Amino acid sequence: MTANIEAAISALSHLDIDTKPASLKARSRDFFWYSPVLKDRLDHVMADFAVSPKSEAEVIEVLKVCYAHDVPVTARGTGTGNYGQAMPLAGGCVLHLNQMNAIKDISPGRLVVEPGALLKDIDAATKAHSGQELRMFSSTWATATIGGFIAGGSGGVGSVHWGALRDVGNIIRLRVVTMEEEPQIIEITGEDLHRVSHAYGTNGIITELEIPLAAAYDWEELFVTFDDFEEALRYSYDLASCDGLLLKLVTLFEPPIAHDYFQRVKPHVTPEKTVLALMVAPQSMPGFETHLAHWSGEVIYRKGHTDWPRDPGLIFEYGWNHTTLRALKVDPSITYLQVGIGTEDPVGRALRLREEFSPEVLLHIEVTRQNGKVGFGSLSLVKFTTEERLDEIVRIHEAMGAPNFNPHRYTLEEGGRQSVDARQLEFKRQADPKGLLNPGKMIAWDDPDWTYDRMYAWPGMTKAAE
Amino acid sequence: MTANIEAAISALSHLDIDTKPASLKARSRDFFWYSPVLKDRLDHVMADFAVSPKSEAEVIEVLKVCYAHDVPVTARGTGTGNYGQAMPLAGGCVLHLNQMNAIKDISPGRLVVEPGALLKDIDAATKAHSGQELRMFSSTWATATIGGFIAGGSGGVGSVHWGALRDVGNIIRLRVVTMEEEPQIIEITGEDLHRVSHAYGTNGIITELEIPLAAAYDWEELFVTFDDFEEALRYSYDLASCDGLLLKLVTLFEPPIAHDYFQRVKPHVTPEKTVLALMVAPQSMPGFETHLAHWSGEVIYRKGHTDWPRDPGLIFEYGWNHTTLRALKVDPSITYLQVGIGTEDPVGRALRLREEFSPEVLLHIEVTRQNGKVGFGSLSLVKFTTEERLDEIVRIHEAMGAPNFNPHRYTLEEGGRQSVDARQLEFKRQADPKGLLNPGKMIAWDDPDWTYDRMYAWPGMTKAAE
Repeated sequence: MTANIEAAISALSHLDIDTKPASLKARSRDFFWYSPVLKDRLDHVMADFAVSPKSEAEVIEVLKVCYAHDVPVTARGTGTGNYGQAMPLAGGCVLHLNQMNAIKDISPGRLVVEPGALLKDIDAATKAHSGQELRMFSSTWATATIGGFIAGGSGGVGSVHWGALRDVGNIIRLRVVTMEEEPQIIEITGEDLHRVSHAYGTNGIITELEIPLAAAYDWEELFVTFDDFEEALRYSYDLASCDGLLLKLVTLFEPPIAHDYFQRVKPHVTPEKTVLALMVAPQSMPGFETHLAHWSGEVIYRKGHTDWPRDPGLIFEYGWNHTTLRALKVDPSITYLQVGIGTEDPVGRALRLREEFSPEVLLHIEVTRQNGKVGFGSLSLVKFTTEERLDEIVRIHEAMGAPNFNPHRYTLEEGGRQSVDARQLEFKRQADPKGLLNPGKMIAWDDPDWTYDRMYAWPGMTKAAE
Repeated sequence: MTANIEAAISALSHLDIDTKPASLKARSRDFFWYSPVLKDRLDHVMADFAVSPKSEAEVIEVLKVCYAHDVPVTARGTGTGNYGQAMPLAGGCVLHLNQMNAIKDISPGRLVVEPGALLKDIDAATKAHSGQELRMFSSTWATATIGGFIAGGSGGVGSVHWGALRDVGNIIRLRVVTMEEEPQIIEITGEDLHRVSHAYGTNGIITELEIPLAAAYDWEELFVTFDDFEEALRYSYDLASCDGLLLKLVTLFEPPIAHDYFQRVKPHVTPEKTVLALMVAPQSMPGFETHLAHWSGEVIYRKGHTDWPRDPGLIFEYGWNHTTLRALKVDPSITYLQVGIGTEDPVGRALRLREEFSPEVLLHIEVTRQNGKVGFGSLSLVKFTTEERLDEIVRIHEAMGAPNFNPHRYTLEEGGRQSVDARQLEFKRQADPKGLLNPGKMIAWDDPDWTYDRMYAWPGMTKAAE
């Protein structure tokens, strides 16, 4: 099966198509370079052409033509993911959905939207329409698309109240086009949402999403500091357990993260301070202050009530994957891990992890709801030395009962629970019989007997130039 | 200290005052008769006069006059409480706040309101204003006032998402008038809210409330049945643990409650069915159905999608204290308990309680958020025989680790945790130095050394006619 790139380009030439190497290179990349491991493997990856459909009909046309000519198709929004999930490992076509950005319907608690709409634009539109906003979003809110978030993300700002994207109720419906001789349009609901919602576009192209909305508020944005790390952990857990306080973000940074990596925060903290970034609904602010008075924490910044000479900007752009980004900018040797700490004694588990790894690994805790309970995850910062040591760090975490969702891998399985998702695989068999959608990202498709004893290297990847 | 009733009535005669025995009797009562114990003790209780102030200035005038003439003052909304909390044990003045019902300000997430506004009217106004509603309300929503709910209630419909009224953040501010020679107006916030928020009006009269609002939805109302009681319990817990599903009510009725006591449900269930009453946000309905498909439960009623010949009415009027009301109407020997089941293995605890007591005591589980976790409470129905047996049932519950908030007592302490609330007592010393506000309801004031070895009987209560 050899891709006939030229034939596909020719057949699609009436669409918005791009074959210029410079822009094509940019359009073939995401934030994979957060990981030195992925940077080593994927830096050369590049599509043969990009196309930006303006409608579902054009998506169908692209998929039909590429199917006919055996051209791989990798869908993407704005490429703000960190796992190489939007990178075209086998070249071919990058399907940019940025022009399919219509906000189609807003009603109480619901939104129907095209995949290319930016999270920021959605929030602006839903707030203006009826005082609503997205339940959750990635820290790349300002530049990321809703389709990319749903296809490549797992949760984010808002997960402290609403849980994870995979939790039932956080996606209502996805409309998907398959990659067949005659592409089909399939409305996905219910249990079937697991087939495509975090599948990196490996088994269908999302052309429309229906998702729940929440009430919009002018969230208070705060930094709070503690002298004692353990107290800060206990406070984070306790704060998120206050059912009467409406929160959108509870993030904790082990010292000296805030001091060393947050340049506009640095003048206001010492290296020893544990810092929290919080978003609190305005109506919950009096209760928040009542609760905080029982702890030794100090509010050092509150948006709109501060004398800081330099505005720190949006508070959530310190949390989630933006923490790593800020650290990387200061120290290029920093990378990160995604560690599950769970809901059973998360404070104790976090303390044990710190005892084991600090300062080589620094905890960056995101507090979220996990199956009805308050729990921790850590997007820990890692001072990278070698791949061997990174793998060892992962293994020690797992031996300590802290599973890793490895961000140094480009496959769905290795970035997840290292096991085949039969629902995703089964749907790929139906929706992408030639295996042309985002190839190399689903191990189950390419090598069902893979044992996960080492990093998977997809044999079909284009080779780097010598 | 003898009350000079005539002098007070004379001094207040320009206000809306009522001394007619028939209406005065009605205005002196609440739903205390849910309890055969309270019915025995309180049936004769009656005020000497009622007054309905139209403004805070009139409230101040009433309190000042009654203070001068040593007249007890018991505040009330519409008298829908069940604990005799609004009954004037020493006679005197009943302060009806029903005419102070202005909705003063609605903003995103916040409401400022006078105490006499009906919960129903608040929801209508906030929904029309900006698509908002109360976070939680009592099942007496249609007739109860917000002041009565805050001063006499603990939670209700909505507590499955927002926790209890006492949880930080569920009340923002209370404006209170004291009963002194010169009544003071005090704005209560923060930790001090515990002084007056569930104090039955014993230490101040609430003249204004500021409380948080939530987004309003056209809630789906459902009855779901299970054949297996344990599965229904596990389902209830699991459903409420779905962070992505927005719920307002998760109520479970042990068989044969629904069959025997819910007349419009009876034709659709057998005595063996465990029945759940649920309120689900419309945008969560697809996810609700996805989740339910993993269980054997069956939706037998969905508002607006039913062929039931007789409309069952508002679903929440089957839950919380309305369950007892419905049972009482069918079987006057029924009374109830309020049992804490908590968040640690609530399913196992509920099963053990059923094993111990059924069918003399039938579980009516309300699922709520309790300090960040999903937990159960039970407003259990009790087939009443004697006071001795009722007390024994309470004692066995407590020996089984299920604390009781005894609804067969008229004091704050006995209906709560049987201990002095120092914050309430301290504030009463300041705000009501003569002890004239709702006398007999705070044991700590009258008998600080009380040991709770038996039911407290306030010596100051007016005697029943022979």
